[in-house]
Amino acid sequence: MTQDIAARVSAEELGRFMREALRRCDVDETAAEAVARALLTASRMGTDSHGLRLLPHYIRALQGGRIQARPAMRFTRRLPATGYLDAGDGLGHPAGYQAIERAIEMAEETGMGAVAVGNSSHFGAAGCYALEAARRGYMGMAFCTADALVNLHDGTNAFHGTNPIAFAAPVAAGQPYLVDMATSSIPWNRVQQYRAIDRTLPSNVVVDDRGGLTTDPHTAASLLPLGGADFGFKGAALAGMVEVLSASLSGMLHGFRLLPMLGEDMHTPRGIGHFFLVMNPGAFVEREVYERAIAAYLEDLRAQPAVEGREVLAPGDREWRCQAQRDAEGIPLDSANVAAYRQLAEALDVEPLPLT
Amino acid sequence: MTQDIAARVSAEELGRFMREALRRCDVDETAAEAVARALLTASRMGTDSHGLRLLPHYIRALQGGRIQARPAMRFTRRLPATGYLDAGDGLGHPAGYQAIERAIEMAEETGMGAVAVGNSSHFGAAGCYALEAARRGYMGMAFCTADALVNLHDGTNAFHGTNPIAFAAPVAAGQPYLVDMATSSIPWNRVQQYRAIDRTLPSNVVVDDRGGLTTDPHTAASLLPLGGADFGFKGAALAGMVEVLSASLSGMLHGFRLLPMLGEDMHTPRGIGHFFLVMNPGAFVEREVYERAIAAYLEDLRAQPAVEGREVLAPGDREWRCQAQRDAEGIPLDSANVAAYRQLAEALDVEPLPLT
Repeated sequence: MTQDIAARVSAEELGRFMREALRRCDVDETAAEAVARALLTASRMGTDSHGLRLLPHYIRALQGGRIQARPAMRFTRRLPATGYLDAGDGLGHPAGYQAIERAIEMAEETGMGAVAVGNSSHFGAAGCYALEAARRGYMGMAFCTADALVNLHDGTNAFHGTNPIAFAAPVAAGQPYLVDMATSSIPWNRVQQYRAIDRTLPSNVVVDDRGGLTTDPHTAASLLPLGGADFGFKGAALAGMVEVLSASLSGMLHGFRLLPMLGEDMHTPRGIGHFFLVMNPGAFVEREVYERAIAAYLEDLRAQPAVEGREVLAPGDREWRCQAQRDAEGIPLDSANVAAYRQLAEALDVEPLPLT
Repeated sequence: MTQDIAARVSAEELGRFMREALRRCDVDETAAEAVARALLTASRMGTDSHGLRLLPHYIRALQGGRIQARPAMRFTRRLPATGYLDAGDGLGHPAGYQAIERAIEMAEETGMGAVAVGNSSHFGAAGCYALEAARRGYMGMAFCTADALVNLHDGTNAFHGTNPIAFAAPVAAGQPYLVDMATSSIPWNRVQQYRAIDRTLPSNVVVDDRGGLTTDPHTAASLLPLGGADFGFKGAALAGMVEVLSASLSGMLHGFRLLPMLGEDMHTPRGIGHFFLVMNPGAFVEREVYERAIAAYLEDLRAQPAVEGREVLAPGDREWRCQAQRDAEGIPLDSANVAAYRQLAEALDVEPLPLT
């Protein structure tokens, strides 16, 4: 959100461009739609690290063969509430939306449904999939491994990915309760941004290559788990939970063994694992009881007094506010985004984004 | 673990005392056994805040009528994978173990099972219940609300409880992967301990009564969520997830509205909500695939180099080590514990603990 704004584009036009660019790489309509939907969801809500900036990366991975344009996805319902989706080394986004869809179908019957996904790839923001469940009236959770960027507590080097936890719960009169958080304090691209502008990082979020605390983005070698040097055992434990759910339950490699997302090799599939869980609130108490309880909770939460000059928000509130603003004003692109999308348009012979 | 050690007792003798003391308060055998099991599990693992020190509190709550000695517990299986347990204002521990039992039964059939528990009371350490699932070969999760001790991000006052997240995953050759963490950096009783010995608290974990950072235990009015003043929105979001799962899904009051655990009123039931989730790893991939994957993950984790003078551990490793030591040497009591247990023995006419 601190980027330079070089131009703006409507969500509609951006979606059109994304779908066309992906179709040029032989991606089928459903998959192209899923990628556009996930990236637009993130870009509209202000999660710029997981929005439109990722498209050029996905295109490179498709062109290199790391990601299959026409994967043989295969879902197996193993028990009434559980299933496994083999994503066939395709795009992670259609895999994620299909997993949520299957989990919802199972939750309809049994109250809950969960799907482990294997042989997948980067799926954008985990929150998109949890949110999809909440939009349909279910609680949703989504987890994913990623390559090593975050230290263990008291470790010298990166071991876990930024392993996100996403949780969304439906709210009858209003937007869902939406958590989508990395289990590190900051994302790695924050370090890269601060390097570029030579800005000091907050304390207790990164370490140098021997595991020592630093605030210098140039010597920062890896991230600390949430909780920092003193309480990072909690962030690391959560990252490990995400790892066990996403990698062990899908039989995929854990983050430390994954090929790096931004490495040289754009040919070898990474074999990412995800995990999705859906619950029907009405399967525990009467739907109205749940709806009253969460509404009362959020009402109390939003009424709490704030520290001078700050504001108390429920998770997601900042994102819905950003979404309303961007739906009105357009989605911002920085100068690097503008150049990357111009290049894509030329290379793939897609009508350029109409920027304003 | 920094307590003064006034005496030690074997887990066996301590369990015998707990069961007898509870039986004197008209608690039935199954419930007394559940309380003893949960408190011993915590005391053996070194989680002293949730171990033997809680028995006198439970006895007071039973004698005051806040907790029913003979509750009418009622389980309803609402859908194949979900259920609701009305704990009848009884002890939280038998409710917790029964909920895990039911969830395991459902997971046997459908791959997963979850139980929301309402009209319950304090259940000790959340980890006990997740651990029980893991001991039986399942993944377990446990969540619970508590009365307000932790601020929202940028809030001036306490709103959430220390809302724990517990997660345990079975490991074929070894102890389970076990996370049991409050969503604040430190527990409130750490503040009380530091007050007593006039010791400065770590920075970024507590605030004064206007929400300003302090390290003085005497002016500390509430806890910050995990992540501290800068990244506490993550800890607060996790606490909120726990609140929604435990309170909204059980139709109970959220933490901000709960009667305080240590308040004057020992007569009115508190109406605590818990939430338990069990999954069968073999319901997603073949059991052996899961077992190999989690073993490989933990092997890599434990082999990571540590910062000078520290050690890299998997969540739970410290606890298993403590348990082995305490099983050999006995469970330590500080002087306050010794006095409290002597008093209980007299008041309830139970044979005193044989202390060494």
